[in-house]
Amino acid sequence: MNRSAVAHIPTSQYAFARSEDTFTVRLRAAKGDLDSCTLFYGDRACPESPVRFTSERMQKRYSDELFDFYEVTISPCPSRICYYFELEKEEEHIWYYADAFHQDMPDLVMDDGFVVEGRSEYYQYPYILRSEIVKAPEWFLNAVVYNIFPDSFADGKRRLTCGQKEQQAPHGTISRSRLGGTIKGIMENLDYIQELGFTCLYLNPVFQAGEYHKYDIVDYFHVDPCMGTDEDFLALTEAVHERGMHIIIDGVFNHSSWYFPPFDDVVKNGEKSPYTDWFYELSFPVKRPEEGETPGYACFAYEPKMPKLNTANPEVQEYFAKVGRYWIETFHVDGWRLDVANEVDKNFWRTFCSAVRQADPDAVLIGEVWENAQDWLKGDMFDSVMNYDFRKHCRDFFALEKTAADEFLWAMTDMQLRYPFQVTAAQLNLLDSHDVARFLGLCKDDYDRWQTAFLYLCMAPGVPSIFYGDEKKLTGIRESEYRQAMPWKQNHTDSETFVKEVLRIRKDWISPEDGWRTIHAGHKDRLLVFERFGAHTIRIIIHTGEAPADTDPFLQGGQILLLKGALSHMLTQNGFIILLMR
Amino acid sequence: MNRSAVAHIPTSQYAFARSEDTFTVRLRAAKGDLDSCTLFYGDRACPESPVRFTSERMQKRYSDELFDFYEVTISPCPSRICYYFELEKEEEHIWYYADAFHQDMPDLVMDDGFVVEGRSEYYQYPYILRSEIVKAPEWFLNAVVYNIFPDSFADGKRRLTCGQKEQQAPHGTISRSRLGGTIKGIMENLDYIQELGFTCLYLNPVFQAGEYHKYDIVDYFHVDPCMGTDEDFLALTEAVHERGMHIIIDGVFNHSSWYFPPFDDVVKNGEKSPYTDWFYELSFPVKRPEEGETPGYACFAYEPKMPKLNTANPEVQEYFAKVGRYWIETFHVDGWRLDVANEVDKNFWRTFCSAVRQADPDAVLIGEVWENAQDWLKGDMFDSVMNYDFRKHCRDFFALEKTAADEFLWAMTDMQLRYPFQVTAAQLNLLDSHDVARFLGLCKDDYDRWQTAFLYLCMAPGVPSIFYGDEKKLTGIRESEYRQAMPWKQNHTDSETFVKEVLRIRKDWISPEDGWRTIHAGHKDRLLVFERFGAHTIRIIIHTGEAPADTDPFLQGGQILLLKGALSHMLTQNGFIILLMR
Repeated sequence: MNRSAVAHIPTSQYAFARSEDTFTVRLRAAKGDLDSCTLFYGDRACPESPVRFTSERMQKRYSDELFDFYEVTISPCPSRICYYFELEKEEEHIWYYADAFHQDMPDLVMDDGFVVEGRSEYYQYPYILRSEIVKAPEWFLNAVVYNIFPDSFADGKRRLTCGQKEQQAPHGTISRSRLGGTIKGIMENLDYIQELGFTCLYLNPVFQAGEYHKYDIVDYFHVDPCMGTDEDFLALTEAVHERGMHIIIDGVFNHSSWYFPPFDDVVKNGEKSPYTDWFYELSFPVKRPEEGETPGYACFAYEPKMPKLNTANPEVQEYFAKVGRYWIETFHVDGWRLDVANEVDKNFWRTFCSAVRQADPDAVLIGEVWENAQDWLKGDMFDSVMNYDFRKHCRDFFALEKTAADEFLWAMTDMQLRYPFQVTAAQLNLLDSHDVARFLGLCKDDYDRWQTAFLYLCMAPGVPSIFYGDEKKLTGIRESEYRQAMPWKQNHTDSETFVKEVLRIRKDWISPEDGWRTIHAGHKDRLLVFERFGAHTIRIIIHTGEAPADTDPFLQGGQILLLKGALSHMLTQNGFIILLMR
Repeated sequence: MNRSAVAHIPTSQYAFARSEDTFTVRLRAAKGDLDSCTLFYGDRACPESPVRFTSERMQKRYSDELFDFYEVTISPCPSRICYYFELEKEEEHIWYYADAFHQDMPDLVMDDGFVVEGRSEYYQYPYILRSEIVKAPEWFLNAVVYNIFPDSFADGKRRLTCGQKEQQAPHGTISRSRLGGTIKGIMENLDYIQELGFTCLYLNPVFQAGEYHKYDIVDYFHVDPCMGTDEDFLALTEAVHERGMHIIIDGVFNHSSWYFPPFDDVVKNGEKSPYTDWFYELSFPVKRPEEGETPGYACFAYEPKMPKLNTANPEVQEYFAKVGRYWIETFHVDGWRLDVANEVDKNFWRTFCSAVRQADPDAVLIGEVWENAQDWLKGDMFDSVMNYDFRKHCRDFFALEKTAADEFLWAMTDMQLRYPFQVTAAQLNLLDSHDVARFLGLCKDDYDRWQTAFLYLCMAPGVPSIFYGDEKKLTGIRESEYRQAMPWKQNHTDSETFVKEVLRIRKDWISPEDGWRTIHAGHKDRLLVFERFGAHTIRIIIHTGEAPADTDPFLQGGQILLLKGALSHMLTQNGFIILLMR
C-alpha cells in the first residue's frame, strides 16, 4: 500500500456535516492502490464501552492524476461521531486512525483485565452543531449571475452614449465617470438580462467614489453621483425584486479613498484625530503624498489614494457592519461581494457577516479570495468566493489548450474536492470579471471555443457568473478593452440565443444538490464527457479536438437536449451535445 | 519524484507568520526522495511586473517514517507574500505551486507580446496582519503547570483529613465533597508546590456545584461551599501572585447542572421561560427525568444531570463572557482551561476569548480538545489545548513499549508539526489528568519508567503539566484511584528531588523559542537522543532498553547536567543523561 499518499483531515472537506444527521467522509489514496476502503463510525459519547461501530463501504467517487478519492455519506448519523478506516490491498489489512496506520485498536487491556478504552484516539467529529452547518441561501445556490461594471453598461434602454463626466460630490470631492453608465441604465435593461436567463445581478461598486471604477470609496452610505441617486438605486432593487430576481453589491472595506472623511480627519488633525486607529501603519504627520513620494501609511497594493483600513479595530468593524446592514435594510440588496477579502482581519468579516445575516438571514456573502479559500468558508464568514481557479482551469483547457481533457477534469476535481460538497455548490464560478482579460480574448476571439467554456460553466457544480457583454462577444486582454462599453448596437442574436438555451437547460434539468462524475476524459482526444445526476441525469459531451470524435458510445439511452457540430455520429471541433439520460 | 507524497497547505502549519516580518514555510516530501527544495518568494503586491522573487534553499529539518519535512524561515519578509517551490531530484526539476507540478511559470505571453501576469496563481499569504499573529502570553510559554483536583488535594498544610461532606448551598441545592480538599488547603501548600519548581496552578472546577468533581455547575459566580468561600479564593490568587506564580481555573460551559437557575426556570415555567433558548434540543414540558428515563433535552454525553447549553445563543455567549471577565477582574485569575471545548459553538469561544483578553491581554486560554485542534488554534480562540496526544505517544513508548524509539520520535515530530512553531510551544503537554489513568499506573508502577517519561515531558517543546501527586508516585488506573487523596504523609523525597532537579535544568537552560532536533532514535535499541537548541544547546539521552547502551558517541563536547544509570560509558535501562553542549 502506498501509505505516503493516504490522507484524511478531520473537520475539513474530508469530514463534514451536510445537515444535523447527514455526514460525509472522504479518504484519499494513491490511484488504483486500494482494493477497498471501509468507514467504521460510532457515537463517541456512546454509554456502552467499547463504542459500538457501524461499517459502511466507501465508494471510489473521484480520481485525479495521482489519487483516488473514496467517499461515503451516512444518514442518519450520531451528533457526536468517532470513526476510523479499514484499508485493504491484497493481503494487507490496515486500520487507519489518528493520522497513522495501525495493526490494532486503541483499547488497552490491563494485566487485571480492566479495559482502558481508547475511543478518544479515533478520528472525531465532536458535535454536529446546527449553528455550524455550512449552507448558502437556497436562492443563491440556484442563481445565475450577471456581473455589471456600472460605468460601462448602459445609460438608457440598450444604450450607452453619455461618455466621460465629472461631478462635484459631497465632502468637496470630484466623482468621475469614463463611459457614463448609470443605475437607471441598468434598470432599463432588466428585461434584456432576465430574458437571457440570468436571475441575479452583481454590480461592481456603486458608492460615492473618485475614479470611474469606484473602488476608492469616499461615502459608503450614498450612490455615486455620476451613476445616479439613492432613489434610483432603490427603484432598481425594487424592480429587480418584482421580477423575482436578486441583486448583490460590491463592498470595498480593505481600504477607502484618501478623501474618506475619517482619513481626511487624520490628515487635518494628526495624532489628535479620533480616527488615528482606523488606518494601518500611520506615521505622523499624515499627508497625501505627491506623485512618487512614499506614503506614511499602508495602502491597497502601493496605491496612496487607497489607504488601508485597520480592520482589526472594533470601531471600524462596527462602522462597516452598519454599512452592511444599511444597504440590506434600506435598499433591500440580497447580498455582498467583498473586495480584497483575503487582506482583511477575519474578525472584521465575522462581525460584518453576522450583522448582515441578522438583517437578512437569506443574504449571500461572497468574498474576493482568488486562492484556496478554506479559511473563509467554514460558516463564520462567507458563503462563497469568486472562483478564479475555475477560470484558470477553463483557460488552460478551452482557451490555451495547455492541458488535455483528463488534466482539465483532474484539476476541476481537485478544486471541487477542496471544500465540502455544499460549499462547492455555492462557489461563484466565472470565466472573466472586471479584473481579468475577457475569456473570448484568451480564446483569440474564437467564439466556438468560448461557447464550449460557457457550456462547461453552466453545467458544472457551482453558481455561474458572466461579465456583462460576454453574451455579445465582448473581447480584450487589456483593462481598457475588457471594461469597454457594452456594445448595445451590435447584433449578436446567435450568441444571445445560445446563452438563453444553455441557461434554460440548466434551469430545467440541473439542481444545486446534483452530484457530478466523469464519464470520459481522454489524454489525447480532447473529448470531455461528464454527468450531473440527481432527480435527473444530464450527460454533457464537449469536444475541442481537431479530428472529429466518435461520440456514439456515449449517446446510448440519452435524449438530446442541445447539440452542435454533430456530423453522422462524429462530433466536430468545439461541438457539444447535452443529453437527458433515461 | 514521488509526487503523491508532496504536500503544502497555504495559511496553515505549513505557512505561518511568527511576527510581522518573519514567515516560516514548510513542505513535505517522501522520505529521502528530493535532492533539494528551494523556496521562491516575492511581494504579491509588488508594483513591478512580473514579481521579483528571492530564493532561499529549504532545510530538511524533520523526518518521520514516510516523509521529510523541509523548512525555511524568512526574515524580513514582505507583508503580502506569493511563493512557489522548486523541487529537484536528479535530472528532474519541477516547479510546485497551486497544488500542482508545473514545467513552466504562470505568466502568459499573448501573440502581440503582451504579458498577462500570473502572480495570483502562486501560493499566497495574503497579508501578515498583526491582529492575526498567533502568540500565547510569554509567562505561559515559560510556565510549568501543577494541576490540582481540589477535592483530593489538601485541607491544611501537608494534610487532607476532612473526608466526605455535604453542604446546603444557595439555590437550595446540595454541594458534596468526597475527600474534602479546600481552597485554603491549596494556599497552605504553595510553598511545597513552588519549591518543586512549578510556576502555575491549574485547578479543576471550584464553582458551586453538586458532585465532588464540580463539573455540574449551579452557580458560575461563586466558589463551592465545600471548598471554601470567595474570600478564600481571592486570598489564594493573591498569595499565588505574591510568589510570582500564576493560576488558571476550569470553565465548564458546554453544559450546566440541572439545578442551574436558568434550567430550573425552564423546568418550572416551560415554554414561557425566558431561558428556553439557553439549552439544546428541549422538548416541552421539560422535567428532570427519573433514573433510566430519556431526558427531553441534549446532555453532556448522556448524563441528564448535565443539560447541554445552547452556546450558539448570543445571550448565552454574553452571560458566559461575563463569567469569563468576572473571574479575571474580581479574582485576578490568569487564565481559563475550557472543558469539552470541542462540542461548543465556535462563536461562543470567540466571544468568550475576546472578552477575557480584553479584561487581561495576558490571560491564557486553554481548550480541552483531545484530537487535532487546528480549528481552535488559529488565534481567534485558544492559545493552547490539553495535549493528550503527547500523553498517548509517551504511553506507547515509555509505559507500554508498543513503539520503538524511532516510532516514538516520528509520532512526536508529526504532532509538533501539526501546528505553527509558536502554537506547539504553547501546547499543554501532560502525562495524566483528572480524566485518565495515572501514568505511573500505565507503567505498572515502575517508577524508573515514569522518570524517563517525566524527563521527556520537561525537555520537549511545550508547556509541561503534571497532575497533583505524580511527584509522590500516585498511581492507579480507575477513576477512584487516579483521583485518590494526595498522600501527604508518605515520604517520597527521591521523587520530589528528581522533579526539582529536572525543572531547575529546564528553567536554566531551555527557553520556549528553542528548536528541537533528533540526534538518534534507533529502531531496536530504545535509545533516544535529541536536542533543544537556541541560546544554549541541551542534549537529552534517554535509554529504556534492557541491554545497556553505548552512549559514548553522544557525549562528546557535552557537560553533564544530570545523569542516572551510567555505568562505565554504558547507560543501563531507564538511565538518562542531560548534557549542556559547547
